[in-house]
Amino acid sequence: MRRFCFILYLTFWFLTPLSAAYANVSVSEATDECLACHSIYHPGIVEEWQKSRHAMTTPKQAMKLSGTARKISSQSLPDNLSDTSVGCAECHTLRPESHADTFEHNTYQIHVVVSPEDCATCHIQEKEQFSKNLMAHARKNLAGNTVYQSLQESIIGKPVRKGSKVIYEPSSEPTKADACFYCHGTKLEMKGLETRDTPEGEMEFPRIGGWPNQGVGRLNLDGSLGACSACHTRHAFSIEMARKPHTCKECHVGPDVPVYKVYLTSKHGNIYSAKNTSWNFNPVPWTIGKDFTAPTCAACHVSLLENTDGEVVANRTHQMSDRLAWRIFGLVYSHPHPKEPDTTIIRNKDNLPLPTDFSGGFSRQYLIDSNERSKRTAAMQAICLNCHDNSWVKGHWAQYENSIQTTNDAVRTATDIMQEIWKRGYADGIAKGGSPFDEAVEKQWSDIWLFYANTVRFSSAMAGGGDYGVFTNGRYQLSKEIQTLNDWLEIRTRLAPGKGK
Amino acid sequence: MRRFCFILYLTFWFLTPLSAAYANVSVSEATDECLACHSIYHPGIVEEWQKSRHAMTTPKQAMKLSGTARKISSQSLPDNLSDTSVGCAECHTLRPESHADTFEHNTYQIHVVVSPEDCATCHIQEKEQFSKNLMAHARKNLAGNTVYQSLQESIIGKPVRKGSKVIYEPSSEPTKADACFYCHGTKLEMKGLETRDTPEGEMEFPRIGGWPNQGVGRLNLDGSLGACSACHTRHAFSIEMARKPHTCKECHVGPDVPVYKVYLTSKHGNIYSAKNTSWNFNPVPWTIGKDFTAPTCAACHVSLLENTDGEVVANRTHQMSDRLAWRIFGLVYSHPHPKEPDTTIIRNKDNLPLPTDFSGGFSRQYLIDSNERSKRTAAMQAICLNCHDNSWVKGHWAQYENSIQTTNDAVRTATDIMQEIWKRGYADGIAKGGSPFDEAVEKQWSDIWLFYANTVRFSSAMAGGGDYGVFTNGRYQLSKEIQTLNDWLEIRTRLAPGKGK
Amino acid sequence: MRRFCFILYLTFWFLTPLSAAYANVSVSEATDECLACHSIYHPGIVEEWQKSRHAMTTPKQAMKLSGTARKISSQSLPDNLSDTSVGCAECHTLRPESHADTFEHNTYQIHVVVSPEDCATCHIQEKEQFSKNLMAHARKNLAGNTVYQSLQESIIGKPVRKGSKVIYEPSSEPTKADACFYCHGTKLEMKGLETRDTPEGEMEFPRIGGWPNQGVGRLNLDGSLGACSACHTRHAFSIEMARKPHTCKECHVGPDVPVYKVYLTSKHGNIYSAKNTSWNFNPVPWTIGKDFTAPTCAACHVSLLENTDGEVVANRTHQMSDRLAWRIFGLVYSHPHPKEPDTTIIRNKDNLPLPTDFSGGFSRQYLIDSNERSKRTAAMQAICLNCHDNSWVKGHWAQYENSIQTTNDAVRTATDIMQEIWKRGYADGIAKGGSPFDEAVEKQWSDIWLFYANTVRFSSAMAGGGDYGVFTNGRYQLSKEIQTLNDWLEIRTRLAPGKGK
Repeated sequence: MRRFCFILYLTFWFLTPLSAAYANVSVSEATDECLACHSIYHPGIVEEWQKSRHAMTTPKQAMKLSGTARKISSQSLPDNLSDTSVGCAECHTLRPESHADTFEHNTYQIHVVVSPEDCATCHIQEKEQFSKNLMAHARKNLAGNTVYQSLQESIIGKPVRKGSKVIYEPSSEPTKADACFYCHGTKLEMKGLETRDTPEGEMEFPRIGGWPNQGVGRLNLDGSLGACSACHTRHAFSIEMARKPHTCKECHVGPDVPVYKVYLTSKHGNIYSAKNTSWNFNPVPWTIGKDFTAPTCAACHVSLLENTDGEVVANRTHQMSDRLAWRIFGLVYSHPHPKEPDTTIIRNKDNLPLPTDFSGGFSRQYLIDSNERSKRTAAMQAICLNCHDNSWVKGHWAQYENSIQTTNDAVRTATDIMQEIWKRGYADGIAKGGSPFDEAVEKQWSDIWLFYANTVRFSSAMAGGGDYGVFTNGRYQLSKEIQTLNDWLEIRTRLAPGKGK
Repeated sequence: MRRFCFILYLTFWFLTPLSAAYANVSVSEATDECLACHSIYHPGIVEEWQKSRHAMTTPKQAMKLSGTARKISSQSLPDNLSDTSVGCAECHTLRPESHADTFEHNTYQIHVVVSPEDCATCHIQEKEQFSKNLMAHARKNLAGNTVYQSLQESIIGKPVRKGSKVIYEPSSEPTKADACFYCHGTKLEMKGLETRDTPEGEMEFPRIGGWPNQGVGRLNLDGSLGACSACHTRHAFSIEMARKPHTCKECHVGPDVPVYKVYLTSKHGNIYSAKNTSWNFNPVPWTIGKDFTAPTCAACHVSLLENTDGEVVANRTHQMSDRLAWRIFGLVYSHPHPKEPDTTIIRNKDNLPLPTDFSGGFSRQYLIDSNERSKRTAAMQAICLNCHDNSWVKGHWAQYENSIQTTNDAVRTATDIMQEIWKRGYADGIAKGGSPFDEAVEKQWSDIWLFYANTVRFSSAMAGGGDYGVFTNGRYQLSKEIQTLNDWLEIRTRLAPGKGK
Repeated sequence: MRRFCFILYLTFWFLTPLSAAYANVSVSEATDECLACHSIYHPGIVEEWQKSRHAMTTPKQAMKLSGTARKISSQSLPDNLSDTSVGCAECHTLRPESHADTFEHNTYQIHVVVSPEDCATCHIQEKEQFSKNLMAHARKNLAGNTVYQSLQESIIGKPVRKGSKVIYEPSSEPTKADACFYCHGTKLEMKGLETRDTPEGEMEFPRIGGWPNQGVGRLNLDGSLGACSACHTRHAFSIEMARKPHTCKECHVGPDVPVYKVYLTSKHGNIYSAKNTSWNFNPVPWTIGKDFTAPTCAACHVSLLENTDGEVVANRTHQMSDRLAWRIFGLVYSHPHPKEPDTTIIRNKDNLPLPTDFSGGFSRQYLIDSNERSKRTAAMQAICLNCHDNSWVKGHWAQYENSIQTTNDAVRTATDIMQEIWKRGYADGIAKGGSPFDEAVEKQWSDIWLFYANTVRFSSAMAGGGDYGVFTNGRYQLSKEIQTLNDWLEIRTRLAPGKGK
């Protein structure tokens, strides 16, 4: 008899059930069975789970908490999930009919990829908020936008020589998954079952295209968008990890979005680095001053914060952009935040799916208005004001908004030069049916708005200090590359005055 | 009655004064009143303060410590400050007549910006040392130097097209404050009072130009220079934070001064990263081996160090450069340290306010001589010798000084090429009344000395490993950019042989 | 009498021997004598040692451990080393006749540089494994390879102008030691004795060329290769430090080998950053899940790992490459791992000492075959499978191997362009007897394979996220620099069509 693990399980069942290990919280029969084998075969994730809140609480216990301490946002829960810990089976057997990767495994209907819709069983509000988040749409917003696709292929396409030029052949699925869609999220596809030899004998498992992936905009096998595990890492799903800045670093390190680097260089990051081992990252709500004395990414963008008087300073939100007036990640220019998380619907005055046009104008009807911007700014400043007085916060904001303006102005100068290059035919831009991103000089131009202007803005936004604002992909490089772009134009003009390429 | 907070305060006063919370250390009546409101409105900074040495000690207690354990360097203190903790009012009401931002607030004369002169009430020696530090003069040394101003404006000025060129319009005050002067320090200016609506009713507050800022060379509203809070972060003002390298990172991350990156890559930084949670960053003096087993920035440059026998290894200094023989941040070349912290007085042989000339000569009369250099080197090596034997230290120093020489040689080669470019008129240098920093090719040249030569030197100085010395803005990029500069000259020469631009 | 320290020692000897400090572990008489002075003069390293396993255990005690808990791999030990702690004298007086730097010091025959052969007294297996490691040969593999020497000198040689060109004069020994050989390891040479004034009076000490250095491929004064202290930092020699990723950072930070940066950006690194203070880095063996929940560098490449059932998942190895099928550090292309650690013996089809040729072919007879690659891959995957199921691991590997292929393809395109540049005489390559690395355009080409292709591969290998795979020296820069290289060729062609340089 080959099912060694199962026998072991049965033996233990009659002697000392594994569930006894978890104090007052019992494990469901199904999860107990999972653990019998997987604690041997996958000790890493099992041990991680055993230290988690999910392992140490039942949903019923969690529902008893009221007010801001409550972590379950759903109004009611299925009876069968209430009295045991949230274990393997509780998530991996939910809604079996909805998941294309559901397969029979040791008599259970299991699916590999747990989705936000599964998590919504207990955390409905978080799932709903996240679905309105730009991040949930990160895959579609990239894959469904012709301009971004042309940028993408000029980066990850296969460069091959064609005559005197280098062109890009289309990128493959594995390259896409390993590059852009690592963060944006892949499209998962059920490819059928395959038989594998395991220590427990031959077993069938699903073969899933686009897997593994934990990108925030992943298209799941139940049709839902996103991956909670992007930030709430398996299998602890801990608030502590999501509140620490390292989690955000995975996709926001730069130079396009250098927020982690800027944060750790800022005064806030300095305080975090020096003191975080004495902070408490677990409490819900999270109390300013008592639990932590400088914000992390989560503090400003996600967490439910209270002051030491127990007043709510910021509500929890998983629609992370709802305290952001401006999108400082320029496309091509920084602009007011889009109204809708699906940005493929946007059209600029040149009918391109971009929130700005090349002259710096905004695609206003798709972007939030000044009224909404003021509301969002006020919501963010409400957090700042717990450590800084009004004049500090206003002064900081004035510098920050000035830097949005000055970097947009600089990008405009760069884009003017680029448009002259296109006009003279020294490069093939959109007007000639080409990609505006795939030639050497065009890539100099994209450096300017994608890296340097963005870095300056993120540095200003987070008081990230002089170096990211100036010398580390900041204003120094911004001003240098504009001159270099202009220098290229001058050399080309001398080589072929008046007649183009 | 709108003064909710004050009523709350009065109620508490008769029941359980807030001061009771701080064990044996009483809070002054004035500070108690501050805390009544600000513990609600600014819990972040209040809680930070409550965990601080300032909250847990009275100056009288601190004065009782003798020898190297003493943290107050002033000989005597005002009587009214001795018996209560160092709280809000103790600092923010000091010397009201000296601060241009003093305003009436709830019957008190408060100033927003606490300056080194305020801190000098207890810490006179630290203030005096810091005033002789280059850092205290960081704002003036930049703002008052015509050459550096021309470099600054070529970086943060507004780039606009003018004919076939890109020129720079002057940068605005918010841009300056957000960029260079974030670290160098702004000039604070009292702009008058403004009325704001607060939870306690309408109140008047000062409006301060250049605020917020915590740059090391800030010009304060009492005329003093610097900001202790640059390193001793509000409102803990902790030695622990200042001794951790993250504090220095805020302004020294690179690529111009990549010391934080180099340090964390060095063996010392490796030991710090692996072990710091078991070290003790609070004791004064700081004992090598017992409290920590590898130096941080502060250990070599600032802190009072003792060996395990209680002998002083290094005296505390806030004139951070007094153990530095060479200024390895090249301007344009690395050079002996300036004698005076005010470097605007320096003139090189071409009458420019630079410590070196473009041919690599030193402006010797303004720089320390070899005798002083030996003294400073010996003071630094006295620290090294607590872990390393003499041959190790000498060997390290030989490599370090070799690297000052070789990088200066390389910068000389680059500058020779640049001077030929200027001479031929392919760019407008100083001789033609132009800026030597504002054209594309000039920015290639400044990359060489500002980023790559500096990175190599900092890497050598701190045994920062092969990567910062070679591949990460090191010798690889240094040698590459010299070739690229030369290549540019060659192409220009072919385009316009013999006749210049 | 000047020997102050020795008198102190004698006094203490009769009263309370220092050895009493170390609980049940006695210190040898010789080490006791070392400590008498060095605890005063070098408190940093003495205190570090006192907290170490070496100070708290005797070899005899360590030999009693059996199975995977045993840390001493030698079968038997010299009697005189068994009963006392492993102190100063135990290592620094070993095999005096073998070390060229042995000198008389206070009646003892001491050598300064402890070598892997010394460590082999107890740790024979680690020394033998390490000697088969590429790293042990890092110095020779660089210094003894004509192609790499030509690359080296184009980076660290002294750049001087010669006519219209910049050429490189040979680098000096201090530069070599400070740059490439900081990591690769220097050649140590005994230069004779020198007399120095010490607090204990005049004493003689060896003068050692190439010192200090702790490079992994150091040529020691007993002829052995390597430095255990490269990773097991003096004088704790701790497993904890070697298991933390900071140790590897010292030489692997990038952009040529950006593994530390990629790791800390990956999900694994994120978990490490958020949770490592609650992990246990000391146990041998190291238990997955119990001691740690995400791998560090050591977990995958070096450490003895067990699962929670006490089964060995991976054997300890100091031949770090023996779980690596591919060498993803491209020279010029990524290739199967070399069979032998001495890579100077390799010849490609053009008779160059390179593992690949410029057209992308492999020097197959010197590289491991597909059979060995499969074995190594299986050994590595055995570790992954403790947290990830088979489909996850297979999916990850498919992306990883795809990225080896696509980056090699991109480097091929770049090298084709470079070869056309050489062919047309716009740069002097190998065919013309020149260095392929020392001109501006050649350095553009080396950026492509040395930095960008490598970064993409390391990012894929460690699931390092989108940014290192795309925007941080990744595919974005890879594709940009190929276009820039091609653009350079186009401009040269216009300047001198058909006739070369």
